[in-house]
Order: sequence, then structure tokens, then C-alpha cells
Amino acid sequence: MKLATRDNGTLDGELLVVSDDGERAAPHPVWPNLLAAIEDWSTAERDLAALAREIANGGGNPLTGETLRAPLPRTWQWLDGSAFQTHADLMQVAFGTDPIQHDKPLMYQGMSDRFLGPAEPVPFIDEAHGIDFEGEFGVIVDHVAMGTSAADAMQHIRLLVQINDWSLRALAVPEMKTGFGWVQAKPACSIAPFAVTPDMLGEAWADGRICLDLVVEWNGRPFGCANGREMTYGFHELIAHAAATRDLVAGTIIGSGTVANANYAEVGSSCISERRAIEIIADGTPATPFMAFGDSCRMQALTADGRAPFGEIDQQVASHAPAGRDVSS
Amino acid sequence: MKLATRDNGTLDGELLVVSDDGERAAPHPVWPNLLAAIEDWSTAERDLAALAREIANGGGNPLTGETLRAPLPRTWQWLDGSAFQTHADLMQVAFGTDPIQHDKPLMYQGMSDRFLGPAEPVPFIDEAHGIDFEGEFGVIVDHVAMGTSAADAMQHIRLLVQINDWSLRALAVPEMKTGFGWVQAKPACSIAPFAVTPDMLGEAWADGRICLDLVVEWNGRPFGCANGREMTYGFHELIAHAAATRDLVAGTIIGSGTVANANYAEVGSSCISERRAIEIIADGTPATPFMAFGDSCRMQALTADGRAPFGEIDQQVASHAPAGRDVSS
Repeated sequence: MKLATRDNGTLDGELLVVSDDGERAAPHPVWPNLLAAIEDWSTAERDLAALAREIANGGGNPLTGETLRAPLPRTWQWLDGSAFQTHADLMQVAFGTDPIQHDKPLMYQGMSDRFLGPAEPVPFIDEAHGIDFEGEFGVIVDHVAMGTSAADAMQHIRLLVQINDWSLRALAVPEMKTGFGWVQAKPACSIAPFAVTPDMLGEAWADGRICLDLVVEWNGRPFGCANGREMTYGFHELIAHAAATRDLVAGTIIGSGTVANANYAEVGSSCISERRAIEIIADGTPATPFMAFGDSCRMQALTADGRAPFGEIDQQVASHAPAGRDVSS
Repeated sequence: MKLATRDNGTLDGELLVVSDDGERAAPHPVWPNLLAAIEDWSTAERDLAALAREIANGGGNPLTGETLRAPLPRTWQWLDGSAFQTHADLMQVAFGTDPIQHDKPLMYQGMSDRFLGPAEPVPFIDEAHGIDFEGEFGVIVDHVAMGTSAADAMQHIRLLVQINDWSLRALAVPEMKTGFGWVQAKPACSIAPFAVTPDMLGEAWADGRICLDLVVEWNGRPFGCANGREMTYGFHELIAHAAATRDLVAGTIIGSGTVANANYAEVGSSCISERRAIEIIADGTPATPFMAFGDSCRMQALTADGRAPFGEIDQQVASHAPAGRDVSS
């Protein structure tokens, strides 16, 4: 099953059930938005699946001209892991920091009150902050009780999503060195338009990993196509880590961290910082700058037969006028 | 104006306007809960203030026998500072970590999907995690635009609250060393029953600081009574820090971090870790253990004339049965 959220003027948007090919869609009369549905998923899933069958049989309307938002435009919790060892190794070079010694998954809590839609401009205050994209995957869970095991966590993975975790690199290292994690360095993320149930990926959903190539373009030029299978921890293990000392509220999104592969020389990267680290390793100094206002970033995860189950993120970086300043003068 | 949230079976609870003495209260017909009110505060405040005047003139009902929850039982964002230098200095001793070099406020993002009520038992998985309380103050803001200055941030401070930021110390240092901040070490916080507008504190609200003694008891014995005035950064500065690269959603709670004073030898502490640090400084080793299941913690901020504007937190630490295990056998 494939779901999307249409702009209807509300903060949560309107939930749409979408045909597998992304061509047709319909809202459900009972489930106004995805946040409401995920809070009562066992009932909602049955209702939404019935509508999905109707759409597969020719129901619904063409999905054209709609403004699609993030599948969850806001939710109660966003916990982002860093599960690709290649990414961790390269970021250590990029940041000039010591290797992280930790026998558990790496994870931080980020802002969840707003996820940008797949085509929304992304506002930033200052290019000097080191604007970077981070292509990753995520899962949306229903309620997970404190102390749930990784094996039991698997059944709570209800939907899969594709995320751009926007990052401000110049602010990241000082915040990281405090030990408090990132606040200024991690503004709102973006999510690709379609959230899909795990069965939609077939064999590409394996061992709690989304085994798809994440194709990333920066200003229309290929940047990376790393595959999601190389996670050191699967999503079920990330969930168990997050739930070790807290109940996870329904609608929690758990992120994989930046998708990265050991053969980065062939597949490229899913963030600029990694490319800069590779340049540092090769030449002693980074050559690639971070993003400028007006730059664009496109991301889509592709199946072996060329389909994009999550649709695509295609956004432009924009200059945000600071509050209280008159930019017209 | 003084507000509370009554349990009515919903996740957000029912908003109550409360008399200044905490004796009488009434719900408002238009504003069902505080999260809805803070999202449209300029209108809500006018309506709620009108009801407050009615209650002051004998309206409303006695506030007895109600189950009061956290004023905001859930919200979209919780950003906790660490604004008391004495706390930072002592935690460095307690944790055995290097001094934090940072020219900005310290802040992490914590879980906001659930704040426990003032009398709710607090569930933890394992005493070995080092269960600790952290008495602190907080503010609730309405929408704050990205880039808002500290001076302008002051007007967005709509309500003041008193918080117990429950912490698991044995998990804290390893998480801090990753640089990703705390996930497992910071389960749900608790909030005292009354949220108050800044004018309610009179001169005790000064320069963005809540200048009240926070009286903390552990198992009925006095533990600390540090005053909130010694914040290195005021709440308006913490808000500006948080809003530097993101809009702050209405309902965001910003915390002060553990209240601590330079004369801790006289006033004691607001968390066990600090007392252990003081013992380490004096004797080379900590003597005070962390909390055990069944322990209680009581906190109330007192005015010079002995009133408790936020009411009190009085909770017991409880053993949480891990999911999927049959504890009856």
C-alpha cells in the first residue's frame, strides 16, 4: 500500500491512498490524516487497504496537479540513527573528530514538528552555515512499548519513507563537541511523497533494511547512488535501541542516517560532507563547496526495474529573511 | 493567569483556568486544551483571561479530587538548555568529562510526545541505569520565527512551568561521548500542575529568569533549594539560540537545565549527580546512591511569602515490566 498527504490547508494535511503506480489516488472518509491513522493502525490499515483495492480496480482520481506534502507533515518524534559505518568513518574525517567508540547504535532526537514536502523550497539563514543534504531512509512505527526487543520491533514497522535530513555542517562540530547533540545544525528534514508498506518493496525489504539504490543529484548532476543494504544495524534494532527506556509514540519516525557504501569510489555519496572527506583523504583538502542559495537537490530510491516507490524529492535551497529585518530596503 | 490540564481521557487532556490561589477552576467552552490555545495564543489569552476574571469573582468550581496532568501532556518540541554554570561545572566532575568549550547556550532536543503529570508514577526499566531527578524551570512559547533575536524572543514567552527532567546517569556519559546527545538517558519529563503567565510571578520574573527557590525533597528529606536567578543565559536567549536556524512551533517548551547555585554548600542541589560531584570533590568518591524503585521525589518552587505558584510535583519511581515478559511467573 502506498500513501501520500495532500495539502488541504491543515497542519496535518489530507491522507491519500495511492495506486501502486502513483497515478491515481483517493482520500478515505474515516481517516483524515496519516497521524490519526498511525495512532490506530490495525484498524486504519484494514480500511485503507480496502480503499487501495478499489483504486487498483479503477477507483479514485488521477493524481495530477496536487500539492503533495511530506507523508507525515508533523509528528511527535523523530529519532535519527547513523547506521552506515562508511558514513560514520567518513564524517570523522570531514569533521576532524575522534572515532566514536560506542557499542550501541548512534542516534539523536531531531525536530519533528515540521517535515518539508518533496518540492518545497528549503529556507536557510546563511550559506556560511555549510548547507548540506543527507539522503537516507526511515520507518514509521505505531506504538512501541518500552523494552521491546529488536525481533518484536519488526512488526511495528508500518511504513517506509525516504528522507533528506538537511544539515548545517559549520554548526555541527561545535554542537557535537558539547555532547548535547545537534539543535542549530539540524533544521527541518524533507520526506519524499510516498510512504509505503514494507510488502511494497518485495525482496528489497530485507532484514530490516531498505535495499534500494538512493539516487542523488545536485544541480542536475549525478552525486551518488549508494544502496541501503549496508546498515550495521537494521531498523528493528534501531527501534529497540530507541525504545530501551521509553515508550515510542505512534507516528515516531526512525531514520537510518546517511546512506553510504564501502565502495564509495564507484557509487558516490549521499551528502556533500562525505565527498569532502574523500577529497581530504585523497588530496589533503576538500575541494567541493557546500550548497548555495538557488541550488537544487533531487533524490529518488530506485528498484532494480527502475521504479521509484517513494517518488522523488526535488527541492531548491532558498534564502530565508531573518525575522524582523526589512529585506526590501 | 494560572492554567492546568485535567484528565478527560484524551491525549491532550482538558484545559482549566485556575484561580490564583489554586482553589477554584473552570474549563473554557472554546479552548479544549492548552496545545490548541497556545497555537492561537493572542485570541486564546483574551478569552481565558475573561474566564479567569469570572473565577476570581467566585465563578468556577472547587479544584478538588481532579487528576491533574502536565499542563502540556504532549507537545511538538522540547528543547532543554543547561544554563546554570554551577550545574555544568559539577556535572563535569560527576561524569569525569572535559570542560565543555562553547560560546553558545548548551541545548539538546528531548522527547516531547509525553510529559508525565505531577503525581504519576515514573516507570523505569532498571535501577542500574542510575535514576536521577533534575529540578528545573521552563517556558512555553508561541510561534517563534527563525532568526528571532533574544530581545524579540521575550514577548514569545507565554507561560512558565516547573519541570522534573528525569535522567538515567549510567547511560548518559556514553551517549554524550558520541556527540549525538541523549536518547536512552532522557526518558519522559514531568511537569508541575500549574502553568502561569509571567506576570503572576511579579518581581520573581526578571531578565528572562524565574527567580524562585526550587525546593527539592527526596524520600521526604530536604535535598536542595537553589534559586533560578543564576542562569548564565536567560530564557529569551535560550529561545533565540533555538530559533537561530528553525522556526519554533507554538507549544515548544524550552528548559533551563538543572537549577544550581554557586553556594551549593548552603542551598544543596536539584539532582543527585551534583551531590555526588560535591562528594567527589570533598572525599574523592561519591557516597550518595541514585534512586531505587519506590523512592519519591517532591519539588515545588516557592515565593518569598511561601506560595507555590506552579503547585508541586510529588512522584514515586516505579519498576516498569519490560514488554513481552510475563512478570507474574
